[in-house]
Amino acid sequence: METLFIIKVGGNVLDDESALSNFLSDYASITGKKILVHGGGKIATTVSKKMGVVSKMIEGRRVTSADDLEVVTMVYGGLINKQVVAKLQAFQCNAIGVSGADFNLIPAKRRPIKEIDYGFVGDVSINDIPKFHWKLLLEGGMCPVVAPITHDNNGQLLNTNADTIATSLALALSKQYVVRLLYCFEKPGVLLDAEDERTLVSELNKELFDQLKQENKVHSGMIPKLDNAFAAIEGGVQHVHVVSAAAIANISKERESLGTKIGL
Amino acid sequence: METLFIIKVGGNVLDDESALSNFLSDYASITGKKILVHGGGKIATTVSKKMGVVSKMIEGRRVTSADDLEVVTMVYGGLINKQVVAKLQAFQCNAIGVSGADFNLIPAKRRPIKEIDYGFVGDVSINDIPKFHWKLLLEGGMCPVVAPITHDNNGQLLNTNADTIATSLALALSKQYVVRLLYCFEKPGVLLDAEDERTLVSELNKELFDQLKQENKVHSGMIPKLDNAFAAIEGGVQHVHVVSAAAIANISKERESLGTKIGL
Repeated sequence: METLFIIKVGGNVLDDESALSNFLSDYASITGKKILVHGGGKIATTVSKKMGVVSKMIEGRRVTSADDLEVVTMVYGGLINKQVVAKLQAFQCNAIGVSGADFNLIPAKRRPIKEIDYGFVGDVSINDIPKFHWKLLLEGGMCPVVAPITHDNNGQLLNTNADTIATSLALALSKQYVVRLLYCFEKPGVLLDAEDERTLVSELNKELFDQLKQENKVHSGMIPKLDNAFAAIEGGVQHVHVVSAAAIANISKERESLGTKIGL
Repeated sequence: METLFIIKVGGNVLDDESALSNFLSDYASITGKKILVHGGGKIATTVSKKMGVVSKMIEGRRVTSADDLEVVTMVYGGLINKQVVAKLQAFQCNAIGVSGADFNLIPAKRRPIKEIDYGFVGDVSINDIPKFHWKLLLEGGMCPVVAPITHDNNGQLLNTNADTIATSLALALSKQYVVRLLYCFEKPGVLLDAEDERTLVSELNKELFDQLKQENKVHSGMIPKLDNAFAAIEGGVQHVHVVSAAAIANISKERESLGTKIGL
């Protein structure tokens, strides 16, 4: 089977023009099939503020109101997505920007209301992801750049976490391709001490993860990302890494150690 | 050759939720290959105001500043484009939203500065439109929904008039397909008296157009649209009409008269 890179890049890179440019240049130079999933960044907060949209939190959880969804659709689906695509095109990477609504690439369901109504948040319907559509784009030489927006097939756009989108696509496509899933962030990988890069965990399996969580040695912000990473590896995704954005430059060198490798 | 519909829809339809829904339902029911090009609408002005972006006019011409371009990219490329796509998907039309940067679909050049610097405005490089890319989307069963944004292949997004985009695509694709180009707007076609629908001009050729212009019988706002329409028909586009959005419902009935037919 052919290799497919699925790379998630987050706010820290998107907010820094020179970091983004370096990252996109490295990304463009990856040969073979690839999908880039991007999150948002501070610009969504800036636009919300300018537009007078106040984000609601219920019991410490972010809720997506209709106004929030508009901002997300404008900033993630429009501004960031098209800027990334235009820059990749300049680096000779034939990028095509998509949301989950486009070509029905990522169908989802609005999260059911239990204790909390999360608003316009979508949970991806992984089994309904149309593999044939993805294959058509990839075989056609396109490099999809995915904004973290899904839809419910009834005309409603939905806000979905970008890590979750990367995980869902990796799970859906791991029967067709050998998927190398990389979550990029600002640190070189999972660190035992967030301030000390020498404490990088080069390989993390579920047992060690559970142990580190019990010992409070995993930064709380990392837990949802690692939950996603373990869902991927347990669901059959072939290679899963948590790495720094800068590590993408070495991605094609198979022997290079890449941040934290996630294992079963 | 197979027929390809290229349909441009503007602000008047986009701003009216029920008109838009009717239009998209009619559009979805058109069988065969089709491309939808959308303009903006009042929402871009609303977002600009909220964000404190003041549009500049130089000698009565709108100029696209960096801030304007951000709003255009957010509103046209993000909000309107993705909402239209999600609604078409709900109507079983396999829409994919694109800008000119995506898959390099519409390369352009920033308008050269002569008397006026129009800012980030792109003139389409019609000969560089990659017909193979368009064919790949259309043959793959996708219905492209095009936001009026182009790029310069050097990472710069550019603002481009939606009528011009529809015209450029029609010109580029009229060797591969029998193109039926329709500019939709709020009137049933070209009217001699804008207030009286009975004065519809059912067929308009260049001679009559020039005559009507001399007699000041063409509304000034219509002139750029009609200039586009004549550029299309003179450049070899097979069928060109100026119609109301509601007329799309009858598009498949060959014998139905459709607004104003543009002739040589």
